[in-house]
Amino acid sequence: MPSLDLSASSIELTRAICDIPSVSDDEQTLADAITEAVSGLAHLDVYRDGDTIVARTDTGKAQRVVIAGHIDTVPLNDNLPTRFIEVDGQPMLWGRGTVDMKAGVAVQLKLAAELVDPRVDITWMWYDHEEVAADLNGLTRLAKTRPDLFAGDFAILGEPSNADIEGGCNGNIRAIVRTAGVRAHSARAWIGENAIHKVAPILMRLSEYRPKTVAVDGLDYREGLNAVRIAGGIAGNVIPDACEVEVNYRFAPNKNADDAESHMRDVFAGFDLEVIDVSEGARPGLDAPLAQEFIAAVGGVPRPKYGWTDVARFSALGVPAVNYGPGDPHLAHHDNEQVPLSQIESVERGLRAWLSNP
Amino acid sequence: MPSLDLSASSIELTRAICDIPSVSDDEQTLADAITEAVSGLAHLDVYRDGDTIVARTDTGKAQRVVIAGHIDTVPLNDNLPTRFIEVDGQPMLWGRGTVDMKAGVAVQLKLAAELVDPRVDITWMWYDHEEVAADLNGLTRLAKTRPDLFAGDFAILGEPSNADIEGGCNGNIRAIVRTAGVRAHSARAWIGENAIHKVAPILMRLSEYRPKTVAVDGLDYREGLNAVRIAGGIAGNVIPDACEVEVNYRFAPNKNADDAESHMRDVFAGFDLEVIDVSEGARPGLDAPLAQEFIAAVGGVPRPKYGWTDVARFSALGVPAVNYGPGDPHLAHHDNEQVPLSQIESVERGLRAWLSNP
Repeated sequence: MPSLDLSASSIELTRAICDIPSVSDDEQTLADAITEAVSGLAHLDVYRDGDTIVARTDTGKAQRVVIAGHIDTVPLNDNLPTRFIEVDGQPMLWGRGTVDMKAGVAVQLKLAAELVDPRVDITWMWYDHEEVAADLNGLTRLAKTRPDLFAGDFAILGEPSNADIEGGCNGNIRAIVRTAGVRAHSARAWIGENAIHKVAPILMRLSEYRPKTVAVDGLDYREGLNAVRIAGGIAGNVIPDACEVEVNYRFAPNKNADDAESHMRDVFAGFDLEVIDVSEGARPGLDAPLAQEFIAAVGGVPRPKYGWTDVARFSALGVPAVNYGPGDPHLAHHDNEQVPLSQIESVERGLRAWLSNP
Repeated sequence: MPSLDLSASSIELTRAICDIPSVSDDEQTLADAITEAVSGLAHLDVYRDGDTIVARTDTGKAQRVVIAGHIDTVPLNDNLPTRFIEVDGQPMLWGRGTVDMKAGVAVQLKLAAELVDPRVDITWMWYDHEEVAADLNGLTRLAKTRPDLFAGDFAILGEPSNADIEGGCNGNIRAIVRTAGVRAHSARAWIGENAIHKVAPILMRLSEYRPKTVAVDGLDYREGLNAVRIAGGIAGNVIPDACEVEVNYRFAPNKNADDAESHMRDVFAGFDLEVIDVSEGARPGLDAPLAQEFIAAVGGVPRPKYGWTDVARFSALGVPAVNYGPGDPHLAHHDNEQVPLSQIESVERGLRAWLSNP
């Protein structure tokens, strides 16, 4: 079993963690290494559930912060082991997981070992299966078996945010918009009714749609409405009687699931629409007192997070949550994933500045 | 092995042939029965190639007519054995193959046995694999090995035509029209370019397209331009970078393959278009002297055939060809296939009237 040295630099630790492959559903080796590394630390109570590890300080502070990061990655594509590279003079660590999100996990592990008596109590969470279906997510499982572990006054997810604070996240809804026609032999098309042709106005509305940018608690959330799949047709000589367009709407966190569905029904008025998946967003929650202290300690101007992350889970539990981690989110899932070493160090400094007992 | 009694009525013979299932690629039992039935007839030279049977008179007439019918059907769907039914007082034979096209084959077999000394020499052809890919078609095979057997001054295909003469057939071309975009995470759609949205004008052009009706040699051919398949999309959270629409154009026989392709390129100007399949149509050929005699003998007003049939094969060989058979072509391939008994008798009378030596 590989072992992790939590006294190494956060950069070296990032490299070590990335070089232990942990594609979703194959996190056990890394989870074992993390468990072994934190179990020896007297100031942490360690709890393990599957490949999710929770490590808590219990120093009797008035407030508690949850700091979490997922340990799984999307599949490899010849991008491990990691390499140190330089791009335009900037030193980077290249390879799967460097951005999404093992650099964040490495910083968390280093500080979990170091901060024996932090200014607030901390619940560290490293969890499995974030990159796959929500019902497999380690936090979904943990929320059922140990909801008490989610208690806190503030939460930080180490998702890549270019080492800036990204508040909240957009919601995410997917729906199928359907057309129906009448099947016929295409040699006598006038007997049928072409369901694919009827999709024209759906695609016109999509291509003419101008997504809004919505200010929520001082941050601007950029929305998006997109067809992500289209399918129709039976055979090369048959007028199709059915066609469906799967539409994905990313909505600002001032809307709940009902608002989002209702907006989609307005846009596609006159068409059959079925919602197949919805995740509400999260308001940035930056007005919470702990959030304000965190922003002051870290510096910089908070920005909105566009993608859905597990901050929404904490938000739904009433725990204000933000994303804060090294790496450019645009490079998440790219085969060319790479993180600037300076961002790893910056996040380490930011978290330490806020969490250290003055 | 079931045996066929060619002295039975054409209605009874239709029933007997339909009750020997012969879905494409499974024609051997029926082909064996046909071979056995015609091999004993002294006035016919019989040639067999796979499950295709050719039976020729050789009476030294100045002219020769080819009369052909395929013996395969589309797959069964609980619609055999056949049943005699009555619809609005009209007696029908119901079941797979009754329309497409075993009633036509039965009439041909009966007349093949009966017409020992016809007014023109006759080449009868009963062939396999018409309902599947063109390269499997028994006539495609025969045209390679025995092109001499296709020699003739006129040809009649027994495809269902409601016992009327249907001249020529439309051509058939299929093309893929493609759009390209830029893949991106759907949470940051503005970084990508949605290839499905770009399909909107393609579908608008299709839904606004008004197909022409084109007069060719006195018959009106109704064209059609239809999307028969559409596909695009990668995952529920990805902006798609590619989408394709398969379009089927049925074109009047005044156009050749180049004309048809060029028309499609005009309609979809600005888009990438790839032709994947093309079959030219056939002009009705009703001005041929034998055709005129045939029309006069059968009576009625010739109509255009919309679907592509093997008449195009004869037309391409320079042999004028028409469709003439019992059954409503709209019921071809329907699970509810059924042929009016009166049409079977009508086609039998029509062919006999023309082919008998006066």
